[in-house]
Amino acid sequence: MNITPNLRTLLERRKPGYSLEAPFYLDPVLFEQDLKLIFGRHWIYAGPQACIPEDGDFFTVDIGSTSVLLVRDGDGGVNAFHNVCRHRGSRLCNEQKGAVGNLVCPYHQWTYDLTGKLMFAEHMGEGFARDTHNLKPVHLRNVAGLLFICLADVPPQDFEQLAAEMTPYVVQHRVADCKVAAQIDMVEHCNWKLTMENNRECYHCRGSHPELTRSLFEYGFGYAPTPETCDGINEYNRLLAERHAQWEALGLPCREIDHLDDRVTGFRTQRLPLDRGGEAQTLNGKAASSKRLGQFQQSDLGALSFWTQPNSWHHFMADHIVTFTVLPIAVDKTLVRTTWLVHKDAVEGVDYEVGNLTAVWNATNAQDRQLCEQSQRGIASPAYEPGPYSPFTEGLVDKFCNWYTARMAAELG
Amino acid sequence: MNITPNLRTLLERRKPGYSLEAPFYLDPVLFEQDLKLIFGRHWIYAGPQACIPEDGDFFTVDIGSTSVLLVRDGDGGVNAFHNVCRHRGSRLCNEQKGAVGNLVCPYHQWTYDLTGKLMFAEHMGEGFARDTHNLKPVHLRNVAGLLFICLADVPPQDFEQLAAEMTPYVVQHRVADCKVAAQIDMVEHCNWKLTMENNRECYHCRGSHPELTRSLFEYGFGYAPTPETCDGINEYNRLLAERHAQWEALGLPCREIDHLDDRVTGFRTQRLPLDRGGEAQTLNGKAASSKRLGQFQQSDLGALSFWTQPNSWHHFMADHIVTFTVLPIAVDKTLVRTTWLVHKDAVEGVDYEVGNLTAVWNATNAQDRQLCEQSQRGIASPAYEPGPYSPFTEGLVDKFCNWYTARMAAELG
Amino acid sequence: MNITPNLRTLLERRKPGYSLEAPFYLDPVLFEQDLKLIFGRHWIYAGPQACIPEDGDFFTVDIGSTSVLLVRDGDGGVNAFHNVCRHRGSRLCNEQKGAVGNLVCPYHQWTYDLTGKLMFAEHMGEGFARDTHNLKPVHLRNVAGLLFICLADVPPQDFEQLAAEMTPYVVQHRVADCKVAAQIDMVEHCNWKLTMENNRECYHCRGSHPELTRSLFEYGFGYAPTPETCDGINEYNRLLAERHAQWEALGLPCREIDHLDDRVTGFRTQRLPLDRGGEAQTLNGKAASSKRLGQFQQSDLGALSFWTQPNSWHHFMADHIVTFTVLPIAVDKTLVRTTWLVHKDAVEGVDYEVGNLTAVWNATNAQDRQLCEQSQRGIASPAYEPGPYSPFTEGLVDKFCNWYTARMAAELG
Repeated sequence: MNITPNLRTLLERRKPGYSLEAPFYLDPVLFEQDLKLIFGRHWIYAGPQACIPEDGDFFTVDIGSTSVLLVRDGDGGVNAFHNVCRHRGSRLCNEQKGAVGNLVCPYHQWTYDLTGKLMFAEHMGEGFARDTHNLKPVHLRNVAGLLFICLADVPPQDFEQLAAEMTPYVVQHRVADCKVAAQIDMVEHCNWKLTMENNRECYHCRGSHPELTRSLFEYGFGYAPTPETCDGINEYNRLLAERHAQWEALGLPCREIDHLDDRVTGFRTQRLPLDRGGEAQTLNGKAASSKRLGQFQQSDLGALSFWTQPNSWHHFMADHIVTFTVLPIAVDKTLVRTTWLVHKDAVEGVDYEVGNLTAVWNATNAQDRQLCEQSQRGIASPAYEPGPYSPFTEGLVDKFCNWYTARMAAELG
Repeated sequence: MNITPNLRTLLERRKPGYSLEAPFYLDPVLFEQDLKLIFGRHWIYAGPQACIPEDGDFFTVDIGSTSVLLVRDGDGGVNAFHNVCRHRGSRLCNEQKGAVGNLVCPYHQWTYDLTGKLMFAEHMGEGFARDTHNLKPVHLRNVAGLLFICLADVPPQDFEQLAAEMTPYVVQHRVADCKVAAQIDMVEHCNWKLTMENNRECYHCRGSHPELTRSLFEYGFGYAPTPETCDGINEYNRLLAERHAQWEALGLPCREIDHLDDRVTGFRTQRLPLDRGGEAQTLNGKAASSKRLGQFQQSDLGALSFWTQPNSWHHFMADHIVTFTVLPIAVDKTLVRTTWLVHKDAVEGVDYEVGNLTAVWNATNAQDRQLCEQSQRGIASPAYEPGPYSPFTEGLVDKFCNWYTARMAAELG
Repeated sequence: MNITPNLRTLLERRKPGYSLEAPFYLDPVLFEQDLKLIFGRHWIYAGPQACIPEDGDFFTVDIGSTSVLLVRDGDGGVNAFHNVCRHRGSRLCNEQKGAVGNLVCPYHQWTYDLTGKLMFAEHMGEGFARDTHNLKPVHLRNVAGLLFICLADVPPQDFEQLAAEMTPYVVQHRVADCKVAAQIDMVEHCNWKLTMENNRECYHCRGSHPELTRSLFEYGFGYAPTPETCDGINEYNRLLAERHAQWEALGLPCREIDHLDDRVTGFRTQRLPLDRGGEAQTLNGKAASSKRLGQFQQSDLGALSFWTQPNSWHHFMADHIVTFTVLPIAVDKTLVRTTWLVHKDAVEGVDYEVGNLTAVWNATNAQDRQLCEQSQRGIASPAYEPGPYSPFTEGLVDKFCNWYTARMAAELG
């Protein structure tokens, strides 16, 4: 590699409205700073509570080389711990998900209860203080069924605002009453920020996502006004206003909230109409599950979208939810975990078909992976230099970069 | 790795007549210097023009993480660009070769014409200066159908001398009137310099290349004079003089030109007789294609060899051409691209068989790969120290190292 | 990685009785120091002499990127050399084992005899001093059939004490009269120290090694005294004393010698009874080979165990021997080579079955690999911190760490 300028210098000379300089995507040392300052100090979306419906159910989330264990305890609560035995450091749970009675280390059978308390450690003698060897806790918050964790000693306080503002939007979809219908892990050979930036614009949708754009209105994600697009934009805005009025009347909050780059815990939400059937992100736009979520009486509620910095996005529909967790593995390797939720009483093969439920996002994920990997390869060229964002369609990408660079600078101190 | 001495120190203490010290083959930081100072500032052989016979045909050449796009424009010219979109840096052409109308970025459809001019970029608004976002050009020169590129801002001037001196040698083989009969990419797990050094001697031929030495006279590549070899050497020299006289009478330049280590743009050429059939580097020494190149009236023209620093060698025969492009991928990973050219009117299965055409060099490449990889492993041992070159058979290896170290020192400044 | 503290600081603040800090297992730079200071300056177990029964037989041992060649010469002696040609550094023998007449470099046929003397190098001319280009020797010692090498210029002197003390224990098993019945190489994705630490305790045996614990008495490897275990421990101690008396009467040394952390060349030995059949580490505890080693008249001689710092362990039984060589490949990659020896006259299918002979350690190795890899992953988490060793069952792990840190500190100077 060429010599990378100092991180502080890179942050200071960042040019708003332009893509980031190459070291942000390529430099392994800078990636370690991403892990420390972004993923180590902010609220990270882990996954939906529906992944662990029973006591003793667990799943793990790996952030770089940090492994976090989320486990449902005997009181129906959820706890998060570092997935590391306090004896000689063995990983406790090697599987990504499963169910346990207690947490027993496979190496020497040190045994922790579901609250992380060390219950039993053989051969350690009289002088051994068991109570100083409990599992190391990780901060955890549950927003209407969505689980967030924070590795920092003192997590950002403004998560409470996110929780207060988002709960009314999400709550009626009853995430806690859902079950996991499908979950797919995909590894993208690119930096995690390219995965996120790709998610924050639909400029690329028409060229790359034939399945997604069957139900998605591109106009919802920005469009340059031209004589040709003028009618379409006006028509879309009319539809948006009409639907928002209908849904608000049903008690469903719709209006955009955007704190993507003006808060430590950045997020954005908006309820948007869907095209064709208007019910779900499926190939025909109709609901994928006949068992509607919560108390919903109708299926054409569009999609409530929810985006969080630095690592998630979600789409809540009347019949199902799709939720995405982005986890950095290495400077050029990123995990995208996609989870499809349906009503917990929906029966596969009767109320829904997994193939139909997952078709659009499986196709879209594969397309996005290719785009992101091609970007990673291009940016690796010494000829790459930051290019301009579209003022109409890439404003949210710019906000992602604003948030990222501001948070890095602030945490670097 | 152990701590590598300063590059300047390594260059200064280089001992002529001996192989290079280990860090030149092992150190990733030194490899980055190779990319910058050698591959970034000298003329690099990309491939033959015959790879892109039609307007819109392109191929790519990857040098480390730099990707260069060579494309035939609408006027029959060839242009070279950095293969990186000026928007957000996506690689433009992901395939190694293909054909296009315009160059359209797969990410957001920014569209460049075949001269690299940005024609179209949606959603960029009024203020966007399209003309400052053309593809970044790469210097390109075409020597009688052989394409060379240079990544430097100001390329070495003495390329003109190479072009002037080599054109008379190559021109009668009519590279531009050839077509690609076969092209094979092979990855060697060794430093690119081991690939090149291996090419610059035939000391190893008798022990390793049974197919190649059917047509190649070993004496043509140096031999220690001993009572046993004396007769053979004399006989070979007599043959060489006789053939040179015949070929020169046909207007074919033959004599050796050697500027391997006394020019910035180092090269060497010589026309040499072949053994057995005497016509081509095939298993039986006979021509592989019945359609002779250019205006040639006879097949026994031996092989015109052409070697360039830092990354190519070529053999031009009466019926076909074999041309080799060496491209560094990583400190211990090198691409060898072999291209076989025949007359563009030759018909596969009628005038030539691909299996017969490629047999010798496919076998030889595989043997060389093994030798180079075994060298890389041996040199990785801390027990390795530079050893002496044979004064009779490894003089051109020494010249490669002379050129390399002198150029590195000069460019390091 | 986070910035690793200075190695000296890490060594100085090592807390006895606790596992090592994470950089010792994760840091590539520290791994290079392991190779230099531990593997480059101490006696390393290479393998049993039985691997090379005939003149010209060889095997190689790779330590990091250093390759050492052990070859049986024409006088029945064994020589060790760096596996690197003195010409341009090619690896001489690319296979892990084989048989040769002379050592001929595959690149340019430089030819060395079995004592490493350069016999022949073509094309090198008059001025070439052949006698200064012999293979570089590596120190080698043979202890009753076990081959140890040392890469240092001046090897540790106290190896003589090990040889003097161990020979009486090992000699009656006649390693030199054995043949290799099976040899299996296994790569563990962990640091070599985790492989060694895992070997130095049986705290994990009951939970992970059902096959091994059929014949192994766990009490032999430490046990916390509790009311429940008291009877078992006493019974085991009685058995141990009884067997030691019997075996000593047969002239077999039994008592523990422990110099694991008080010598430069650390080692430990002890002869221990076996459970069930009491004869061998097999599934039923009975001998695996009906041809007893040496002059043994009975099969129930338990197992003589021998452990060396930094890289081996061995179990000598009446009918067979299992010997383990641990070789570091990379900071997180380790080779475990297991060799099973039987009497050289034993006939496969008649006197022994390979499946039965190897069943216990094949299963045990696979289980240990999983434990070690799970430890490597856990320790990679920033949440890992050194944990306490059991004072009853992990004393020898502590001694391994004592030896390692003391030797590193001493060699660092």
